[in-house]
Amino acid sequence: MNKHAVSHIPDSNYAFALSENHICIRLRAAKGDIKRCVLFYGDRYYPKPRIKMAAIEMNVVASDELFDYFEVDFETEYPRLSYYFWLTDGTEDCCYLPGKFTKSPQVNRMGYFIMPYIRREDVALVPEWAKNAVIYQIFPDSFATSYRNISLRSDIKYTPDGQKSEARLGGTIKGITENIDYLTDLGVDCIYLNPIFSAESYHKYDTIDYYSIDPCLGTMDDFKIMVKTCHKNGIRVILDGVFNHCGWKFFAFRDVCENGPASRYKDWFYKIEFPVNTENINYAAFAYVHKMPKLNTGNPEVIKYFCDVGRFWIKECDIDGWRLDVADEVNHGFWREFRKAVKEEKPDVFLIGEIWEDASQWLNGDQFDSVMNYRFTEICKSFFAFNDISVDEFDNRLGFMLMRYKRQISLVQMNLLDSHDVPRFLYYCGEDARKLKLAVLFLMTYAGIPSVFAGDEKGISGFLDTEYRSQMIWKDTPFTLELFNHYKKLISIRKKYIDIFTGGVKTIYKDNAKGIYCFSRFSETEEIVVVLNNSEFRQTVSLPLKNLDKGCIDLLTKNTFKCDSGSSALTLEPLEGAVLKAFRDS
Amino acid sequence: MNKHAVSHIPDSNYAFALSENHICIRLRAAKGDIKRCVLFYGDRYYPKPRIKMAAIEMNVVASDELFDYFEVDFETEYPRLSYYFWLTDGTEDCCYLPGKFTKSPQVNRMGYFIMPYIRREDVALVPEWAKNAVIYQIFPDSFATSYRNISLRSDIKYTPDGQKSEARLGGTIKGITENIDYLTDLGVDCIYLNPIFSAESYHKYDTIDYYSIDPCLGTMDDFKIMVKTCHKNGIRVILDGVFNHCGWKFFAFRDVCENGPASRYKDWFYKIEFPVNTENINYAAFAYVHKMPKLNTGNPEVIKYFCDVGRFWIKECDIDGWRLDVADEVNHGFWREFRKAVKEEKPDVFLIGEIWEDASQWLNGDQFDSVMNYRFTEICKSFFAFNDISVDEFDNRLGFMLMRYKRQISLVQMNLLDSHDVPRFLYYCGEDARKLKLAVLFLMTYAGIPSVFAGDEKGISGFLDTEYRSQMIWKDTPFTLELFNHYKKLISIRKKYIDIFTGGVKTIYKDNAKGIYCFSRFSETEEIVVVLNNSEFRQTVSLPLKNLDKGCIDLLTKNTFKCDSGSSALTLEPLEGAVLKAFRDS
Repeated sequence: MNKHAVSHIPDSNYAFALSENHICIRLRAAKGDIKRCVLFYGDRYYPKPRIKMAAIEMNVVASDELFDYFEVDFETEYPRLSYYFWLTDGTEDCCYLPGKFTKSPQVNRMGYFIMPYIRREDVALVPEWAKNAVIYQIFPDSFATSYRNISLRSDIKYTPDGQKSEARLGGTIKGITENIDYLTDLGVDCIYLNPIFSAESYHKYDTIDYYSIDPCLGTMDDFKIMVKTCHKNGIRVILDGVFNHCGWKFFAFRDVCENGPASRYKDWFYKIEFPVNTENINYAAFAYVHKMPKLNTGNPEVIKYFCDVGRFWIKECDIDGWRLDVADEVNHGFWREFRKAVKEEKPDVFLIGEIWEDASQWLNGDQFDSVMNYRFTEICKSFFAFNDISVDEFDNRLGFMLMRYKRQISLVQMNLLDSHDVPRFLYYCGEDARKLKLAVLFLMTYAGIPSVFAGDEKGISGFLDTEYRSQMIWKDTPFTLELFNHYKKLISIRKKYIDIFTGGVKTIYKDNAKGIYCFSRFSETEEIVVVLNNSEFRQTVSLPLKNLDKGCIDLLTKNTFKCDSGSSALTLEPLEGAVLKAFRDS
Repeated sequence: MNKHAVSHIPDSNYAFALSENHICIRLRAAKGDIKRCVLFYGDRYYPKPRIKMAAIEMNVVASDELFDYFEVDFETEYPRLSYYFWLTDGTEDCCYLPGKFTKSPQVNRMGYFIMPYIRREDVALVPEWAKNAVIYQIFPDSFATSYRNISLRSDIKYTPDGQKSEARLGGTIKGITENIDYLTDLGVDCIYLNPIFSAESYHKYDTIDYYSIDPCLGTMDDFKIMVKTCHKNGIRVILDGVFNHCGWKFFAFRDVCENGPASRYKDWFYKIEFPVNTENINYAAFAYVHKMPKLNTGNPEVIKYFCDVGRFWIKECDIDGWRLDVADEVNHGFWREFRKAVKEEKPDVFLIGEIWEDASQWLNGDQFDSVMNYRFTEICKSFFAFNDISVDEFDNRLGFMLMRYKRQISLVQMNLLDSHDVPRFLYYCGEDARKLKLAVLFLMTYAGIPSVFAGDEKGISGFLDTEYRSQMIWKDTPFTLELFNHYKKLISIRKKYIDIFTGGVKTIYKDNAKGIYCFSRFSETEEIVVVLNNSEFRQTVSLPLKNLDKGCIDLLTKNTFKCDSGSSALTLEPLEGAVLKAFRDS
């Protein structure tokens, strides 16, 4: 037995509550090593008569390059649990306790793993609606000025207190409102807008005023109308909160520049020295950008200011969520206060952090519900766009990705193929739309919230920010129409079977040589099987799909299959996929 | 290379800040497997000209049964770091990145480990004074009624509002005050008192009134005088906060019993049903004890109430710390608020959680500074009392213990041989005081805060709570005097060389056959070497002590040694130890 590989960490993504009496326990072991893993658990404070430990079988639910992940979830009447694992590799068996392996468990429960108490306040809960969401990300400057149109113009306007605001392409909030029917037609039910508050640059990440709409983008009324129109159409609205830093024209920063240490706001900025020097900067800033001074988010005044900002846009305009910029450079305490404040205003507000790497420490239920899942992006880029990893490696990386967070958190990760911060996925595909389409099929059927960056569905490509933030394509061609319809069809399938697509996920078949990857999504009663042919060749595959043996339908093509003796023969065109559902319950 | 064994977790005990520009990075690998481990790191947002990654050698600082722990700490000018590890086992070398091993690092820093920002608010800081403390734990009922005396009496008194309070042995707060000179003579500089607020049972864990001193123990004035006397004598005072549950005679619980769902306090208790039934209890309770209803510590009113309690005893009586009962059954949010409140009153208040198992999630700088280290207890019991583990296993378990927390947190763990909750250590030693004395030598010289449960230094023993909570021995015998002097001498050595004993720790020699364990404690400039003979035989050992080759002194016996050619020959009696310091700086 490879004992070095065995790992379990209490109070982590390896041991967590799904609700007050439903918990999930995981154990990591070397790939293929452990043949059986049994969880023994009991009440930590057993009353008389002494209750025996219960035994429950654990199953491998995911694997990565080196490890298998065993998991079990179950209802428990005990709020306090003691537990240990019994493992066998077929020749050797042992008990796994914190920091040690023993032949038999100790009689005394001291020394077992514990879940001290399923403290209901510490259960990581995510908004119900978010689980089912399909997000559409809009970079406002690039999107629209009116119905199915964007009139290109760079522009300069001024905020009420005279600060300059730039537009590059001239998209407006009104432009979004006038195209709401486009969004409902596509089928998305949530939009995430890049920043819309008054700011200097066209990208609006250098906020001047957190309480006003940028003059280039429109007015407060425009925005209120937009949110109302969205809500009427079943679309929720997420705003971009840039609270790590502000723009250098933010009133408080102007004040410290002017008044130095005498400024009322002298403690609002991080590591600032006086007199402030904006050329050889003597203050912390986002990525050394002098126009983006870092806020002192440890200062209770600053915390209160931004909690108020967070509340304001909910109270005033009824927004439904915040995407939080550069979230991992801001202290945990700030986010805890922010969450408390905005969830008080609206309990099901959805909070997404911008954290590109592992974000476990922000996802324990006290800060964010989700983060932008750039690991998903990277995996898809390698597999679909570059095709430089095998089906096995694709599966391994997905397994690692799924297991790094608590289950409920993994299920609401904001999965994206691209965003305003990276080249378009189609660019990486070498403009081969078949690859994009296959990746979109995967995005729409996999675990996590699919997110589409506006224009992806129209074939916008590009490597430079001016390219991937180029204007929305409103004049359709056969190519854009076909691509749009592909997104639309897949979103409608996801929506129709949302219980399945927000349920479990399991790899069921892999063929490295053929480039075939096949996984199952399942609810308690139903299953959908997704098959991807990530190769340049037509492939015929026999899948061991016992649940589909009475015949099944490809929800994409409506083609049906008759499956023989428990194995389904399926032919897929190059870079195509199928979304299979058994006849009886389709 | 055993890749399954290699582990690094960002934002954890494997990657943490010691201060705003001083960080510590660890990596775990299979024991003996990795011959060299080099950390490569650089600025995450490199300005031009592009700064090369720096390389820094990591060293094994601890090992356990299966793993070696590599560590390095260094000052950094970058608040945002990217890093990866280069490893070699002598035949194979590779780079270790999140979730994968590669032959060479990627050119792009995306995909490296990151420390997103050394956010100063998230640096886990502990009170300076606590690092140097030696704690004496007093169970007030058992300790004293007057100078060097406890007059035995069980008693019943009543709180101002007529609730019954019991005494078993009759110790009082005045009794503590009158024996302060005993504590200064022993040399301790901090006392931790078991609960002293009005409560029904003699142990006072079923609080009736969080704002008054228990009538059996004394008065508010008694307590204020005690704290003042302690402070005058350089002794800090830690109180026991029982906030997970209250006593059933607590005013709010009496109110819900009386008024049911109409009670103003109906949301103050956890999972309570009405009418309240205290026989077949229909509310959550500590360990199913009906007299200890669990408080709803998620209720903001309850949080405020106990934050106020926390502040009150600091403001009113100037206490220096809180030991927090059943800490891991209370939600994190409660403790975060509590910490904020009491640190506002007194920034260097010391917070110790009662958590018997791994407490990482409570020790990130936002909740507790320390926990009661019962893992230390267990390890000492096995090695010194039962002698059922080898020197190697002793060392392995200590290595595991040290590495589970951030360094600054491990250094202020409240190490204890016993407490009011477990049989006396001497009992487990089969009343062999030599074993206790050797364990005390270890306690006083190892990493962490030594804590002595009152009476240990007088040879109190016993398995049952009535035994291990029996009255303090005030009438000395040659045996108690000698034991007392052993504690006193060791405490004075620790205090004299406190910079060394709060510095680093490293195992330098082990001999399973002879039962010899030898470790070094060191500051930046000085070193002390501790040698333990945990066997029933006189042992002569040659230690590879190159720093002591000019001769050294045993601080315990004042014996000196002349060491030949870099190896010191030392003879130790059965179950004895030595505390060695080089001549030149002793």
